[in-house]
Amino acid sequence: LRKKTPEAQQLAEQIIAGNKTALSRGITFIESQQAKHQYIAAQLIEYCLPKANKSIRIGITGVPGVGKSTFIEAFGNLLITQDKKVAVLAVDPTSSVTKGSILGDKTRMETLVKEQDAFIRPSASGETLGGVARKTRESIILCEAAGFDHILIETVGVGQSETAVHSMTDFFLLLKLAGAGDELQGIKRGIIEMADAIIINKADGDNQKKAAQAKSEFQRALHLYPTKNTGWTPQVALCSALENTGIDNVYELILSYLDLTKENGYFEQKRRDQNKFWLLQTIEEHLKRNFYQHPDIKKELPLQLQLIEEGKTTPFVAATFLLKLKDN
Amino acid sequence: LRKKTPEAQQLAEQIIAGNKTALSRGITFIESQQAKHQYIAAQLIEYCLPKANKSIRIGITGVPGVGKSTFIEAFGNLLITQDKKVAVLAVDPTSSVTKGSILGDKTRMETLVKEQDAFIRPSASGETLGGVARKTRESIILCEAAGFDHILIETVGVGQSETAVHSMTDFFLLLKLAGAGDELQGIKRGIIEMADAIIINKADGDNQKKAAQAKSEFQRALHLYPTKNTGWTPQVALCSALENTGIDNVYELILSYLDLTKENGYFEQKRRDQNKFWLLQTIEEHLKRNFYQHPDIKKELPLQLQLIEEGKTTPFVAATFLLKLKDN
Repeated sequence: LRKKTPEAQQLAEQIIAGNKTALSRGITFIESQQAKHQYIAAQLIEYCLPKANKSIRIGITGVPGVGKSTFIEAFGNLLITQDKKVAVLAVDPTSSVTKGSILGDKTRMETLVKEQDAFIRPSASGETLGGVARKTRESIILCEAAGFDHILIETVGVGQSETAVHSMTDFFLLLKLAGAGDELQGIKRGIIEMADAIIINKADGDNQKKAAQAKSEFQRALHLYPTKNTGWTPQVALCSALENTGIDNVYELILSYLDLTKENGYFEQKRRDQNKFWLLQTIEEHLKRNFYQHPDIKKELPLQLQLIEEGKTTPFVAATFLLKLKDN
Repeated sequence: LRKKTPEAQQLAEQIIAGNKTALSRGITFIESQQAKHQYIAAQLIEYCLPKANKSIRIGITGVPGVGKSTFIEAFGNLLITQDKKVAVLAVDPTSSVTKGSILGDKTRMETLVKEQDAFIRPSASGETLGGVARKTRESIILCEAAGFDHILIETVGVGQSETAVHSMTDFFLLLKLAGAGDELQGIKRGIIEMADAIIINKADGDNQKKAAQAKSEFQRALHLYPTKNTGWTPQVALCSALENTGIDNVYELILSYLDLTKENGYFEQKRRDQNKFWLLQTIEEHLKRNFYQHPDIKKELPLQLQLIEEGKTTPFVAATFLLKLKDN
């Protein structure tokens, strides 16, 4: 599709050979705003695509404080004992202002980060959700080409980022705590509809009774939702990431899901549907970037927004002005 | 901004004079896919803008069966007895398949539709949400220019259409029923966070006790949400649109809201913020339309989607191909 540069070819070969330093560098190209870097990133993706797609992609969400980093550490370590290779990525458009992004603080996954078969990468920052989501999606390809067969994609549990993560994963896992009104918070955001499993974390010590109650509540609540076209009934399970209990059960849940959906064809159909969605997303993200990064627009857009703030123009007049500016 | 045509000027003058037939024709131009019609629509908006913006825009949502059409009829008639002019529009991307759009069936508002001071227009159909939302937003301008001072914008209560309606209205009203698990359905969609008032409809006959219970439940639930930066505490009220009780109370609620937010400046600030949002939405909608309506893209996009379905290409390769096609 495009002229290959030796630099990109060499880096791609290193990534495909499983070199984690090369993988990191590759993702840095994906995350860069510079046109030259974006050109290399596009080539890397083309090289890596034929080697990608062999993984299981697991989305993990939950509000700050639910114990996502501890859970990912425990779950990732379990996978590694099963001879799996684990990459941990994140979609978190708020991470630039550090609103509770777990991956910004790698030290919180201190055993996992030391494993040869683990790769941990914080979320791209200073970006719109669309931008972060695209970069994460492209990073998945590089991770898969590097041989990572389990991709954990964490999101911080605010706003629309769950929808983005749901649209790029095979299995979507919602972490919850018992008590503290957290049930309602989860319900109001419509996340439960997306969840393939709800895992109640911190089911240890004095919390165990409350956790068991919460499990019954969620099971009842899930009955109110229509059956998914996966044929899968979302499951509720308890765990304590801190005490490392119930983690193997979560993995077994995921394996049952994979058995079912690979047999009934849903797994492949979902990936194809996601690919169609991402074709449109990639195009639209490109169109927007192309527009907003134009030097004239960068200069004039803030002025037009200011005129709107002062009541001196309308959105339609301003949009027409900017669209014409770009065309000329 | 652009060369005016006599046809557009004449139609705009008729709209501004309050001619409802002209208003209908104007909205038909806004809804048309033809370039010639879109050109007239753009001129109409420019003519009408200086005359617009003097209305109160009220969003109304609720699941099918909650009685939206009966409520709008009762509420619209109340406004007309107060010498107001009422326009009823809809944002309903599903209306092409008639999934419960109230406005597709005008006969359900049979008294309101006969009023000289009422204008009722069904949702544009066969479109994406972005397209429908843009057209509704532009239709508001024409309605306001025609002297309609109360704009009711109905949405059918599925998916993201509430967010679109919330972003173009001053006051957002959620209609509910007592019982039947409907409370939870409302909560899970995150609509309650947007609501300035929750109105429990069909609070009549045997329903009254259940309705009063539901009112208490919602009031308790609303306490769990943080205070809005409007300074307004969302209210819960009962009504029976069928028996025409409690409707005046709803109107008084809205007037209190307007008093508060016009005094504390939030009303104007929200409109300015909405205008900034709509500047970006208008630009992005235009970029997408411009791309997807290009003849080469119209021909090639379905083929690329088919290749993805067959697993013969990837979203990135297909996107790159299509973006280059458009550039040439």
